[in-house]
Amino acid sequence: MNDIIQTAADNDKFAKHNGIKLLSVGKGSAKAEVEIKEHHLNGLDIAHGGIIFTLADMAFAAASNSHGVDAVAVNVSISFFKAVSSGRLFAEATEISRNRKLATYRMDVTDEAGEIIATMQGTAYRKTPRK
Amino acid sequence: MNDIIQTAADNDKFAKHNGIKLLSVGKGSAKAEVEIKEHHLNGLDIAHGGIIFTLADMAFAAASNSHGVDAVAVNVSISFFKAVSSGRLFAEATEISRNRKLATYRMDVTDEAGEIIATMQGTAYRKTPRK
Amino acid sequence: MNDIIQTAADNDKFAKHNGIKLLSVGKGSAKAEVEIKEHHLNGLDIAHGGIIFTLADMAFAAASNSHGVDAVAVNVSISFFKAVSSGRLFAEATEISRNRKLATYRMDVTDEAGEIIATMQGTAYRKTPRK
Amino acid sequence: MNDIIQTAADNDKFAKHNGIKLLSVGKGSAKAEVEIKEHHLNGLDIAHGGIIFTLADMAFAAASNSHGVDAVAVNVSISFFKAVSSGRLFAEATEISRNRKLATYRMDVTDEAGEIIATMQGTAYRKTPRK
Repeated sequence: MNDIIQTAADNDKFAKHNGIKLLSVGKGSAKAEVEIKEHHLNGLDIAHGGIIFTLADMAFAAASNSHGVDAVAVNVSISFFKAVSSGRLFAEATEISRNRKLATYRMDVTDEAGEIIATMQGTAYRKTPRK
Repeated sequence: MNDIIQTAADNDKFAKHNGIKLLSVGKGSAKAEVEIKEHHLNGLDIAHGGIIFTLADMAFAAASNSHGVDAVAVNVSISFFKAVSSGRLFAEATEISRNRKLATYRMDVTDEAGEIIATMQGTAYRKTPRK
Repeated sequence: MNDIIQTAADNDKFAKHNGIKLLSVGKGSAKAEVEIKEHHLNGLDIAHGGIIFTLADMAFAAASNSHGVDAVAVNVSISFFKAVSSGRLFAEATEISRNRKLATYRMDVTDEAGEIIATMQGTAYRKTPRK
Repeated sequence: MNDIIQTAADNDKFAKHNGIKLLSVGKGSAKAEVEIKEHHLNGLDIAHGGIIFTLADMAFAAASNSHGVDAVAVNVSISFFKAVSSGRLFAEATEISRNRKLATYRMDVTDEAGEIIATMQGTAYRKTPRK
């Protein structure tokens, strides 16, 4: 992992607090990972929707900020398919559309077996660069 | 806060790890709180979308499980309106619709001044009780 | 209904083709109506999701364009609660949040008895006025 | 196009009223088409969000009902990327996940040049077959 990605990951205190790692970032894409631990579980002893959201959101943030323009999440929709309680989860962000002010990404969350756990769609607003 | 709420809050390891407290639960409603700390911030030093989602999700889970039937999140949409970097945030869940198998809730996230920070809409699937 | 509303409603060829009427428009709010007819039904003989969406979308468009700045839908989430096959349906749009470039609205769709049929949340992008 | 598809398309009065054709249906997939005409336009003379939604919804309905179990839409999220005012639009539905009671589909809407116009994600509830 290169230094820029490492810095981005270190700067995100919430991701760090929750054990999420950024694996890679490309133009309009990114991949993140988390290993589900005891402190990620909810009252039913399955991975909390919040950790799955945060994992996917990290890939979304990295992908939407990969073009050198600050982008912030506006709208996010997530569907949950399968309960997990251990093992590693991966989120992969793909750019669906991008214009000057708005960009939309799809994040698929999968487990170690490659099975889909959740899918997220997110739209980011791209700030006008200061001159 | 009564004992049942306390137990539900304690059992949710992820909410606990992230400092989220359940304030109240009624039939189809719930309220949760978090105080934004350094470890809730993202790389831009604003509260991470993940902590706002998790706060609202806790109110959603409490409200959707308030009728004595286990309910799990199926779909969640969240819109973010305003960046915050400190202070307390509140999420309040309201039941919009409920039938035998599905129920939908709205969660408004506000800051201490009562200004809206985000709004979430979530649908839960209600499991058939075992006999 | 005043002339401006009438003109807006007449200009929307798709709404007209499908019998949707704009009832009122205020700053950040609007109300629309449709009477469910045979040609609004799907293969199961219930009102098509498309007519319910279009009804709510009309209220959304009217409300988001009510401030004198052109606004276009970016993201819309809709949840369907109840099947209907006749009678009038109403959609009422309420502004949840608005800044310079983005605004979010909630549209509740109800039947004649006031029961909720569907709820929609929509975010619009506000174009920069030409000088 | 085979007879079953033809019948499904004919039975959907709303799709018929708005010129939407079902092109193909497979197990968990479907494709639909509409040619944008004057009566599909909104007040800004671009294709109404309602016709794009309805097109994608037709592919969603066909795909989610392709397994021999009645399925109804519960939640739909759609993001709009590009305005169009003429030509043919296509919606293609793909199954993302399916269990006994719920199934989720992704619908991409493209124009004749293959460019993406909108993307939709929809969850359907699968009714228990009567015995």
